Amino acid sequence: MKKKIKKVNAAILIIGNEILSGRTQDKNIIFLANWLNSKCGISINEVRIIPDVEKVIVKNILHLSKKSKYVFTTGGIGPTHDDITAQSISKAFKLKYEYHKEAYAILEKYYGKKKFNDGRKKMAKMPRGAKLIYNPSSAAPGFITKNVLSLPGVPSILNSMIENCKIYLTKGEKVLSKTLNLYTVESNISKKLGEIQKKYKKNVEIGSYPFFRLGKIGVAIVIRSVFLTELKKVNNELLELAKIKKIKILKI
Amino acid sequence: MKKKIKKVNAAILIIGNEILSGRTQDKNIIFLANWLNSKCGISINEVRIIPDVEKVIVKNILHLSKKSKYVFTTGGIGPTHDDITAQSISKAFKLKYEYHKEAYAILEKYYGKKKFNDGRKKMAKMPRGAKLIYNPSSAAPGFITKNVLSLPGVPSILNSMIENCKIYLTKGEKVLSKTLNLYTVESNISKKLGEIQKKYKKNVEIGSYPFFRLGKIGVAIVIRSVFLTELKKVNNELLELAKIKKIKILKI
Repeated sequence: MKKKIKKVNAAILIIGNEILSGRTQDKNIIFLANWLNSKCGISINEVRIIPDVEKVIVKNILHLSKKSKYVFTTGGIGPTHDDITAQSISKAFKLKYEYHKEAYAILEKYYGKKKFNDGRKKMAKMPRGAKLIYNPSSAAPGFITKNVLSLPGVPSILNSMIENCKIYLTKGEKVLSKTLNLYTVESNISKKLGEIQKKYKKNVEIGSYPFFRLGKIGVAIVIRSVFLTELKKVNNELLELAKIKKIKILKI
Repeated sequence: MKKKIKKVNAAILIIGNEILSGRTQDKNIIFLANWLNSKCGISINEVRIIPDVEKVIVKNILHLSKKSKYVFTTGGIGPTHDDITAQSISKAFKLKYEYHKEAYAILEKYYGKKKFNDGRKKMAKMPRGAKLIYNPSSAAPGFITKNVLSLPGVPSILNSMIENCKIYLTKGEKVLSKTLNLYTVESNISKKLGEIQKKYKKNVEIGSYPFFRLGKIGVAIVIRSVFLTELKKVNNELLELAKIKKIKILKI
């Protein structure tokens, strides 16, 4: 491999009792993971879901921000008592928790002076030095503090803001992927699959996932690599394996 | 509060590149969280999603098994090369990774001697001393090692096995919850809500979650407590707040 590869990773920190209690199905992980890889070549190396508890948030922010190039937090930036992401990040990085002038102006303009109450003002409080991530759908901005990007928990709002994260991110090499859906069972190909993975372990990651489709059992083989040539080589070896074993391939 | 409350917690460790890459939407967290609370009075205190990498699994198993009463792992117990949960748990606890006699017998019977190939045999390898979690849908058992319960990643199979975890779990006090859906915006009630939370902070957790329903904006207030009387008190205070502020309540 002569090509120099730039790997960039990120962690996701979901802050929210509603996910831990089973009340809410998280939809932000899959969205962030797909967007970050496809648009920025950034891979998620870890996700944590934690409760709305300051000391827990502080500890995780400190740990993940050291370990990963970026940390994306979701949740806890609204106007209520359980929204404590900004104050917790301030505490983690020993920064003053204060009104962000531009955020304050944006929110005051959006709600109008008369309706700009304490709850709404709270959404303008951020760690000192934070930069804004603009929110085209409901005004209240997200923010970046050091390498930590804080976004809201409501998926539709998060999605509307994501393009505004781009200016703060260093791009990495996009991970390419190819899926082969084979009408077989995992154990029929597991030995050979392990051999192929071993042969290409340096640059290719092969995943094997059973599926059920229209009453038939199959295995989705997912090949992932930043190198297109390596991806193709593994794909060809798998097609050869399917041919030898007389396995039907599902085209979708 | 005179009642003695037994709090039991658990962590969830999702092992799977397919979730981190954004290929697959996780459905196991919400299922486990709901089942554990409603059936066993066990609360989830943390969730982590990590890649199929042995040293990462080992580290997280050791950390979470110390921190929580139980750890539930999902994924990585199938027949392919990327299924390394059992061997990683063996390594974490310094236990021999070997055939579990009963699991071997179950799988051999299920597949028949002729079709019981190496991949399938791999599913009978577990940490020494593991106890089985029976699988009524596809035979391959899960297992419990110390306080770590290992389940498959495929949601339908995991769901079919969950009742068989019960015998290994100590029950805790169930967290009761009540949701009030108010047709208002968070900032309209955030101040008073914060005061109520403060007043009942010892025994009640109040969450506030915006919703959009048929074009209208609202806030779901979720009250959670192990004490029914406290839950009712907070509910009454919230109903009073809605009355004073002339907020319509959505009945669903």
